[in-house]
Amino acid sequence: MAGSRRPGPGGAPTSPGPVSALLRVDGGSPVDLGSLPADATTGFPPEPTGERRPRGGKHDKRAARHAAERTAAELAALQERLYAAATAGDRRRVLLVLQGMDTSGKGGTVKHVAGAFDPAGCRVHAFKAPTAEERAHHFLWRIDAALPPAGAIGIFDRSHYEDVLIARVRGLVPPAVWARRYDEINAWEAGLAADGVTLVKVFLHISRDRQRRRLLRRLDDPDKQWKFSPGDVAERALWPAYREAYEAVLEHCSTAVAPWYVVPADRKWYRNWAVGRLLAEHLAALDPRFPRGELDTERYRARLLAS
Amino acid sequence: MAGSRRPGPGGAPTSPGPVSALLRVDGGSPVDLGSLPADATTGFPPEPTGERRPRGGKHDKRAARHAAERTAAELAALQERLYAAATAGDRRRVLLVLQGMDTSGKGGTVKHVAGAFDPAGCRVHAFKAPTAEERAHHFLWRIDAALPPAGAIGIFDRSHYEDVLIARVRGLVPPAVWARRYDEINAWEAGLAADGVTLVKVFLHISRDRQRRRLLRRLDDPDKQWKFSPGDVAERALWPAYREAYEAVLEHCSTAVAPWYVVPADRKWYRNWAVGRLLAEHLAALDPRFPRGELDTERYRARLLAS
Repeated sequence: MAGSRRPGPGGAPTSPGPVSALLRVDGGSPVDLGSLPADATTGFPPEPTGERRPRGGKHDKRAARHAAERTAAELAALQERLYAAATAGDRRRVLLVLQGMDTSGKGGTVKHVAGAFDPAGCRVHAFKAPTAEERAHHFLWRIDAALPPAGAIGIFDRSHYEDVLIARVRGLVPPAVWARRYDEINAWEAGLAADGVTLVKVFLHISRDRQRRRLLRRLDDPDKQWKFSPGDVAERALWPAYREAYEAVLEHCSTAVAPWYVVPADRKWYRNWAVGRLLAEHLAALDPRFPRGELDTERYRARLLAS
Repeated sequence: MAGSRRPGPGGAPTSPGPVSALLRVDGGSPVDLGSLPADATTGFPPEPTGERRPRGGKHDKRAARHAAERTAAELAALQERLYAAATAGDRRRVLLVLQGMDTSGKGGTVKHVAGAFDPAGCRVHAFKAPTAEERAHHFLWRIDAALPPAGAIGIFDRSHYEDVLIARVRGLVPPAVWARRYDEINAWEAGLAADGVTLVKVFLHISRDRQRRRLLRRLDDPDKQWKFSPGDVAERALWPAYREAYEAVLEHCSTAVAPWYVVPADRKWYRNWAVGRLLAEHLAALDPRFPRGELDTERYRARLLAS
């Protein structure tokens, strides 16, 4: 697109709404995660829209919970229209990709966001370490298999980006292999976008201190210890390498058709609110419509009344 | 099991709780769905447990909504324990099977029940008409592929029972084929049960009048017409044949290890409450436990504090 002020590698950034505009990463230039505070509450509370907001100070959990409830209702209504539109041939669908360090709240975000949707039209997939069968295929093979069909919302807890994150940090493949994956991912995502997939890629940004607190909490609660893995401590030691790998992802793979959003995630209430808003803004921009068919309603009404 | 008063084909009925006991079908003898009122609210409100219930009459929507909220919290807590237990090798999992005529509320029940669970441990699968590939396999092939893994809750919106329902009513396979499927299903379900699957099979029982009202509502609301299919009217005309096919299922396939429950479903609030209770009673009977590991917490705490 012409006329862009800060073109990313895939073209000019465009934004479906105010929170998206604030959190969006303009790809193509280096990203410094250290300069982005993980406890920020960017864009909250939203601009006054004429409606009364609860008193008691901005940036507060209670207001965010109310705002998130309104967003949930909005998401449910938009999802129904997206789903309905697909029954009339609309191929559009939405894919939320969640990435972030251990304890950044990927699972909690899935729970919060998916809770707004009708499960019939929402597919959640958590990617673990690839199986032997998956490793025998191209790295995008298992991702393709988990994509949402027309009319659906897909939610990925981890994704193909692990193939340029842990694969790079842990050296699971040679540098030449992971290095070419950025372009492969961009090309693949551009194909999806052209086919009607709205990609919403979210990096849940937590601080190293916050991760320590969350890991300690798991360790100290007997009912949470099962979530603790000794491997978490080993991964944490690689924090700088992961940060670098994430910065490379944000620089190389935030494109006009599939941008990345950095969501400060030290505060859970903000994280939930922000991811909900990102989805709501993208869905609203799609503006899916209920099909208006040429159903002969009189005929079927008569048949139903007679049966 | 010996000493049963009304043994089903698979043994003596046992029940994990009061609502299960009330709604359970004792297999082995003929079932007359006509004698079961679809607008019943069996078991609601539950026995007083010492807690105060909202005034304003029993059997009322508001009380049910509150009760359903309590059940949702119970389901979430039990699911977490089931999920956690699986990380320590517990193979148990739960499968809710929902069947019922069109408009009986299978989708609405999925939405309500799945809403209580963390999507990470809950797999919802809606079975449509089988694809060409699925038809090229044994009828249980696609069902097997959709089963929940250890620690998860599976929810089926329609299931393998379609292969003795629409397949029988519409003559999609010869009578000799569907006729032997009852035994095949019982044997297959017994195998699952022995492997740790708790099957909760629910027939959502609506009246023919209620179906007409619901279909008319879809027809009359422009935003709901996309849900209306001319085929719904054709299927409705086969109501007596479907009823007979359901009665056969309830008679032949309600076994000790995998019983059927008939949930009166004319009232949505009762239906949601009852299915939630059935699941909660079965999960509570499993009594899954958080693993208590031999984690050297002091060592990891020290390492975390140093990192």
